[in-house]
Amino acid sequence: MSHDQVVLKIGIAGLGVVGGETARQLINNAERLNTTAGVNFQICAVNARSRNTDRGFDMTSMTWVDHAPDMASIDELDIIVEMIGGSEGVALDLARASLASGKHFITANKALLANHGTELATLAEANNCALMFEAAVAGGIPAVKALREGLAGNEVTRVSGILNGTCNYILTRMEKTGEAFDDVLADAQKLGYAEAEPSFDVDGIDAAHKLTLLAAIAFGQTPDFDIVDIRGIREVSASDFTYANQLGFRIKLVGVAEPGRVPQMQTCLLPAASQLAKVDGVLNAVEYHGQPVNSIVSIGPGAGAGPTSSAVLADLIDVARGRWGPAFGRPVAELKSGADAQNGLGPDKPYYIRLMVQDQSGVLADVTRVLQQHEISVESLVQQGRSSGEAVPLVMITHEASAASVHTALTAFTALDCVRAKPVAMPILVDELEG
Amino acid sequence: MSHDQVVLKIGIAGLGVVGGETARQLINNAERLNTTAGVNFQICAVNARSRNTDRGFDMTSMTWVDHAPDMASIDELDIIVEMIGGSEGVALDLARASLASGKHFITANKALLANHGTELATLAEANNCALMFEAAVAGGIPAVKALREGLAGNEVTRVSGILNGTCNYILTRMEKTGEAFDDVLADAQKLGYAEAEPSFDVDGIDAAHKLTLLAAIAFGQTPDFDIVDIRGIREVSASDFTYANQLGFRIKLVGVAEPGRVPQMQTCLLPAASQLAKVDGVLNAVEYHGQPVNSIVSIGPGAGAGPTSSAVLADLIDVARGRWGPAFGRPVAELKSGADAQNGLGPDKPYYIRLMVQDQSGVLADVTRVLQQHEISVESLVQQGRSSGEAVPLVMITHEASAASVHTALTAFTALDCVRAKPVAMPILVDELEG
Repeated sequence: MSHDQVVLKIGIAGLGVVGGETARQLINNAERLNTTAGVNFQICAVNARSRNTDRGFDMTSMTWVDHAPDMASIDELDIIVEMIGGSEGVALDLARASLASGKHFITANKALLANHGTELATLAEANNCALMFEAAVAGGIPAVKALREGLAGNEVTRVSGILNGTCNYILTRMEKTGEAFDDVLADAQKLGYAEAEPSFDVDGIDAAHKLTLLAAIAFGQTPDFDIVDIRGIREVSASDFTYANQLGFRIKLVGVAEPGRVPQMQTCLLPAASQLAKVDGVLNAVEYHGQPVNSIVSIGPGAGAGPTSSAVLADLIDVARGRWGPAFGRPVAELKSGADAQNGLGPDKPYYIRLMVQDQSGVLADVTRVLQQHEISVESLVQQGRSSGEAVPLVMITHEASAASVHTALTAFTALDCVRAKPVAMPILVDELEG
Repeated sequence: MSHDQVVLKIGIAGLGVVGGETARQLINNAERLNTTAGVNFQICAVNARSRNTDRGFDMTSMTWVDHAPDMASIDELDIIVEMIGGSEGVALDLARASLASGKHFITANKALLANHGTELATLAEANNCALMFEAAVAGGIPAVKALREGLAGNEVTRVSGILNGTCNYILTRMEKTGEAFDDVLADAQKLGYAEAEPSFDVDGIDAAHKLTLLAAIAFGQTPDFDIVDIRGIREVSASDFTYANQLGFRIKLVGVAEPGRVPQMQTCLLPAASQLAKVDGVLNAVEYHGQPVNSIVSIGPGAGAGPTSSAVLADLIDVARGRWGPAFGRPVAELKSGADAQNGLGPDKPYYIRLMVQDQSGVLADVTRVLQQHEISVESLVQQGRSSGEAVPLVMITHEASAASVHTALTAFTALDCVRAKPVAMPILVDELEG
């Protein structure tokens, strides 16, 4: 079969975990992949930081490129696969140059597209080439394809998801073992589940990049990372899981995007029976709601060499088969402004609030006065334990309240004499995410 | 936007639940769908059994076709959407004529493709048109697309799924309420979840059609319904759920397809913690295993007007955007024979076996002699209750045994004097489907 097929020439920029695995897959499974794609894939150029690392495949027939953006000027290449990362610098330069020269561009770079997606999609259209990024969202789950194509006939009313495996691993383990955040993070770093500099993951930024891309496709809007409301998982304590579980909830970092609203990436309480609440460990999940389909959830590995290279291979095969269209589902000219989130953060929600308070007389009066001043009404309030020395947790479940009033109330709590640590508030996503 | 777009002319054959909803979606959401598709969809011809039914949309501008296959000779049509059903007759005639005349063909008809998929895919290739069937498998879940495109880079090692919502509804309700199969079926028929003639669903045929299509795409083989090993849910009793739950299992009708093996649609016991075991009610689920992705599961509504029309709309938009390729992922010439299942039913499995026996002396000796003769070893055996009159259940869990030996043992059990009803055996899918 494959000897008389068209050859599709590929340049791979970045040969780290995902780039290296993509190259090995293309080489080691060439016959199967070429049959599926109906072309002969050929890696003709590569770029990485170090030329001499043994990556498990022979690079002697490939052109070595020292400076990634120079790859775009190799005329024979049909497709550039960018696995460098970072929203600016060489990745952005390479993306611009590749698309400008009419080369299809496949990337796993969520930061790049969340920040420059509109510009790059415009370039792709102008030069009639594909801009593909299945690997940028939820690793091995074909989430981009599901939303852009599989559910394209729907009026999407919500996309939500667990989009960062590192955070989900940390939260799952804190819940199971009662360990503190810092201890679990340190161990996750040892196990390779978390980076040495973890803020990209644990502060919700990586997940928010992915949510930006899902929202763009779901609602036909330009990707706009800057409007996302982002809160990470650093403030969750082991005791929060205890209280949440007693109330029938689990704690997850969940991204929620709805049309006309600010996409939100936040640590929240989910009913234990909801689909997303059951997704544990490093798994990711994406849940789509819309009409006429109602709702679909997909669960799978959100990171790692294998799953992410599976997504890159899918994009390569789609390009080979001619199965591609506008990057965000419709031409850039027909995308609405992503920043036009006129409905803000959406309807009020109940909140879980935990204060660490000095156990002294007048505490409850102080706390409830702050709540009253911010028009937050309380459904339940529990002070756990008594201690004349250490601060004790005071846990409240509120009735529906606005995010704005809850967050100004937190500032007011901080100013109280009896409050001894940074107050924590997490929304409770009740009926929105019921399985 | 849409006024200067190309018009794509559609004929819809069959205006029942799904066909009617597809038409209403196209008409009522024309602006949104046309923007997403980049064309103006126009329903130019329709066919149904009765012309005078009010279907909630105006057909006066559409050509009425009395005999569905005649629709293929309306030259102006670009796409035919077939929602008639049935593997032979007018649906098959229409499919052949449409593709032969170079019209794209979109269908929800799993029986048609499971039996004639190779012929129709060959016709589609010869006439350079799309043969699309997202709506034929798992309703609103984009399962065909996930496997054919989203996971196309993988060596798929297993596809499994809960593919019939009627069966899953019946089993879920039997488990929850302890009702008997016949009672739940009667009620499901009243609620519209089951057909008046239920055998297509409850005997596993409908689900086996879908499994045939998934196996074809997953393993690059010709669809071959005839080789599927099919067992339905009629024999499950309320007491089976009790025993299964005590042992940590749930009972589901699950389809399993593996490369080189006979696809199996069977009622089986799944570990309660596995992904598929948790899928309840009318939901469907599809689980994909392969390398390099590892595993992905998607859960959603498997039937109904909304979800199924969502899948039809996705196919229409893909055709409009030019995002289509070979029907089963690769050209027919490169598909292997589906009937070449040289590894049979696969490795031995533990089985759950229930006999209804007369409580009399010598029963256990008779039963265990049959097991010994068939080289089936027992892990546990429990006789529930005692009764001098009525038969009582004797429940066994076996060690790994071949399907062949279990089924010949069942015949031998039936011949025993002490056995008073048809024996029941269900495989236990232990590590295969662990979440």
